[in-house]
Parts: sequence; C-alpha cells; structure tokens
Amino acid sequence: MSKLLAVGSIAFDEIETPFGKTGKILGGAATFIGLAASQFKIDIGVVSVVGEDMPQEYLDILKDRGIDISGVEIIKGGKTFYWKGKYHNDLNSRDTLITELNTLGDFDPVVPDNYKDADIVMLGNLHPSIQLSVIAQMEKKPKLIVLDTMNFWMDNTWDELMEVIGKIDVITINDEEARQLTEEYSLVAAAEKIQEMGPRYVVIKKGEHGALLFHEDKVFFAPALPLREVFDPTGAGDTFAGGFAGFITEARNISFESMKNGIIQGSNLASFCVERFGIERMLSLEKSEIDERLHQFKELTQFNIELS
Amino acid sequence: MSKLLAVGSIAFDEIETPFGKTGKILGGAATFIGLAASQFKIDIGVVSVVGEDMPQEYLDILKDRGIDISGVEIIKGGKTFYWKGKYHNDLNSRDTLITELNTLGDFDPVVPDNYKDADIVMLGNLHPSIQLSVIAQMEKKPKLIVLDTMNFWMDNTWDELMEVIGKIDVITINDEEARQLTEEYSLVAAAEKIQEMGPRYVVIKKGEHGALLFHEDKVFFAPALPLREVFDPTGAGDTFAGGFAGFITEARNISFESMKNGIIQGSNLASFCVERFGIERMLSLEKSEIDERLHQFKELTQFNIELS
Repeated sequence: MSKLLAVGSIAFDEIETPFGKTGKILGGAATFIGLAASQFKIDIGVVSVVGEDMPQEYLDILKDRGIDISGVEIIKGGKTFYWKGKYHNDLNSRDTLITELNTLGDFDPVVPDNYKDADIVMLGNLHPSIQLSVIAQMEKKPKLIVLDTMNFWMDNTWDELMEVIGKIDVITINDEEARQLTEEYSLVAAAEKIQEMGPRYVVIKKGEHGALLFHEDKVFFAPALPLREVFDPTGAGDTFAGGFAGFITEARNISFESMKNGIIQGSNLASFCVERFGIERMLSLEKSEIDERLHQFKELTQFNIELS
Repeated sequence: MSKLLAVGSIAFDEIETPFGKTGKILGGAATFIGLAASQFKIDIGVVSVVGEDMPQEYLDILKDRGIDISGVEIIKGGKTFYWKGKYHNDLNSRDTLITELNTLGDFDPVVPDNYKDADIVMLGNLHPSIQLSVIAQMEKKPKLIVLDTMNFWMDNTWDELMEVIGKIDVITINDEEARQLTEEYSLVAAAEKIQEMGPRYVVIKKGEHGALLFHEDKVFFAPALPLREVFDPTGAGDTFAGGFAGFITEARNISFESMKNGIIQGSNLASFCVERFGIERMLSLEKSEIDERLHQFKELTQFNIELS
C-alpha cells in the first residue's frame, strides 16, 4: 500500500454553535486528516504530541481505523493542546475563547523510521519550524508534500513559513489568507504569485463557496455541496485536506487530473464532517454514503453544452 | 425564430470604480438583458421607457443588434432614469450616490402586439406592478416567465411582489435577497420555500461565487469564471439573466438539463461584461471568444471520478 505521513495536532476541542455546545472532545488537525484519509486504501502514519490527559480511548479511535499512531508522543505529566471556540449565527465566523498550546508548544516531531519513506506527506496546520523538521527527517524525497497553514503563521513566523512554502508541492490555504500572503485581491493573481514562491499546485479554500485548484495556467473549481444545515464547521478544512491527500496517496498519480478528483473527494468528505459536532459524523460514515454523495457532486456540476 | 420579450429599464449610468470613472453612459437592465440575449438566434423585443434626453445613437446600439425597440416609449420632455454609483475597493459592494427615477417612475409598459405571443418573457428588475402589467398583456401563455427582482421591492412593495412571484416560472435573485425573502439562512431551505411561493425554478446568484439552480430536489451549480481582474460589475446580473433567457429561447427546451446550460451561458456572458465599463465589452464581443470561454467553463468544472 502507498504510504501517507500526516503531521498535525491532536487536541481537545470545546465547541459552541447556535445548535448546542460540547464538552472537551477529540479534535485537532491530525485527527481530522487521519480520519478522512483512512477512507482510502492506504497506509497512514500520524506524527503528533499529546499530554497524559489524553484518554487512551480517544487514541484508539485512530488506531481502530488502521492509523499508525506510533509517531504520537505522549508527554508524561503534560497537558494536551486545548482549543475552545464559539461560532456566530451564520457559522461562517467564530471567536476563539481559549487556546492552550500545552505540549504542542514544545512539540519536537519524530518521524518513525517506517514513515521516512512515505510517498505523500501532509503537513497539517502547525508552527512552520515543526513542518520543516518533518521535511528534513524524510529519507526518501516524497512524491508530493502538501502544506496546510493559516494567517497566524504569516503574522508571526513569516521567514520560516516562506522556507516551508519553498519546499512543498501543494499548498491549501483559504481565500483571505491567499490575499494576505500575496497582497493580491484577485485569487487568480494570488495563485500565480504563490506558485512563484514554490508550490506547483495551489488550492484556495472558500468554505461554503467551494475550493479552487490552480496549476500553471489551469484552474479547477469544486463547489461545496449545498447543505440544508451546517451544524459545526470545525475540522472541515482538515477533513478536506485529509481527503485530498488520502485520495492522491491511493491513486499514486500526481497529475492535475488526479488532483481534480482529490479536490472533489476532499469536498465530499468535508460535507459530512460539518453535519455533526467534531469527528462524530466521520465515525459513523459508510462507504455507500460517500459514493452516493459523489454522485450528487457529479449532478451538481456536470453539464453538456455542445461546443464547436 | 423563437421570441423573447424583455422588460426593464434603459438608463444612464454613471460609474466610479477603483480603476476610473465614466460620464453618463448607456445602462439599465433591459439594455444588458437585450445585449446578452442578442448573442442567440432569437427574435427579441424590448419594452422600456426613456426620456427625450436619450440619444438616438444609444437606442441604435440595440437596434443594430437586431433588437426590436418598438416597445421602447420615448416620453416627450421627459428625462431618462439615471443612476450614479461608486464601487468599493473589493468591487463586491457599492454605494448608490444618485437615483433619479424620472420617466421610469410613471412607466406604464405597453407590449407591442407582435410580442404578445412571445415564447419566453424576461421581467427585468422593476416595480412589481409594472411586471404584473406585462404579464397581464400576454395574449398567449408564455412557455416560461423569468423574473429578476431585488431587496428594494421586498422592503417596499411586498404584496405586489408576492403576486408576481406567484405567476412566474423562474426567479433569479441573489443570496442575501433569497435569505430576506424567506427568513432562511440555508440557501437550500430558502430555495425550497421560494418554490412553494410559485416559481418551479429558483436561481440564486452569488456574484463572484457563482450561481445555483434549484428545481424540485435537484441542484446545479455554475461557478463564476475566476478572473484576474474585475473592472466594473455593473450589469453582470442582468447579463447573466439575459444570457440565460436568450439561451432557453433559442433552445426551445424547458427542462432542468436545458436550464443548466442556460446558467452556464449566462455566467459565461457575465464574465465578459465585468471586464470593461458598462456595455463596452459586450459590444466588442466575438462569437469565437464566447466559445473559447465556454471551453474554459468545461475545464473549470468537469471531472471524471469513476463511481460505483
């Protein structure tokens, strides 16, 4: 099986939406990436860090899905990264109420030996120096390195972020962040500038408005599936990235055509993620539901104009 | 040839964008609708009103495109509807600086006899009582009536607007307006409620984020083409509606499949409209450019996942 290495946080999330609130539940980029990628027939290893307060049953959720968690370090006496946030009524924006980095603050990632030759590397949203350390530990050049990042690192660790961006193949970033990164309002112009920084493929996420994939002078667009109700957007971006990376890993095909399908697969999985709190929906997800919704994506976007 | 009747304003627009400003130029819903629809092999009649200040050369622009303007009333001593607006830096929002209704304020539309049997009727954004009057004058039930409207009429003429909405087949409306009309945040829920009000087809325009077509339990999505630069969005919505109505008129096919293509054709024409001030780009537009960009729409949206 083709190998995917995913790096990111495993966290406690506490979420409030207009529909209700949770206690501390399992969250974090690596969790959502891993669960999404585990829908594909691949070998997944996760590198992350947690404190002793992380219940074994939470880690077992990942293990039970066939995810190799030997790269998840458990810090004795440490506390796990904790995020608490509250979504506004439109669910498009949120306030962060609490961020406690805890063990994530000193995270020194160690890639297990048997993932140093991973085919695809998915760098979840983290401090760029952690992402750089993972890249440096790879013994075989991966076929593809995918980076997810956010505005926080642009504001605070610009130089290191630029170094990572220079070393990766695909970046996933939201529209506002693409604008901030390039000082270009037009996403077409922004994607062009980002390609000049390093990545050959640029994925711009627009939340409920879908996602754009840019490569050279080509563009592909995947809409978000119009949903009657979004319950909790937490993890949607990570699920998208995990679905994308998981699909590409299974496909063993690094091409624009293959990535189009990756974007659709990622959007499809993200459309489930937002239906319940946290990872809840991802755990109950059946293969038949995934396939049915892929059909809906086809119906939603495919047309047949006769062109001359 | 199949017949399209379009009703709407013919106006003087004065536009300021971050890229420059115009003097009083030709604008108005009927102008943009007519120019877009004239790209199709159909017979188009326009019903509108202007003042004596409207230069004949402006009306000749429509006439030269084969548009029948016998339904455009010229009010002696009257002044033409005038709108002045200024777009913000992102071009997504604008301030209206001046609105002078002038002759449009007393507009009593008269449908010419030879358009009382039009196949398709496109009701451009206007006072609902004017739209109702046009519907009442049709001697043969049109195959399809398409309505464009806006929040202003929801705020000020709710009852009359509801009466129009009860009589039409397709409504085109933007996302915020769909939410206002239904008090539903979810566009899926909003489109369902609007269908209960009358129209069998609901088109929700999301500007740079594309457009959704709803019919029964089916949805289709057309993205806006990602553009390097939007120069002036004025008339994009009307151009979209005119392209949609023009295509359906030529196709003589009222079906969901046909409307998908209409939505793409409308999006395609709108993508040109925004490249220059007012109608400028629509006048220089060549058939080969339209076809080339339709190919781009295919590239942008079509994918090939093997589904089980």
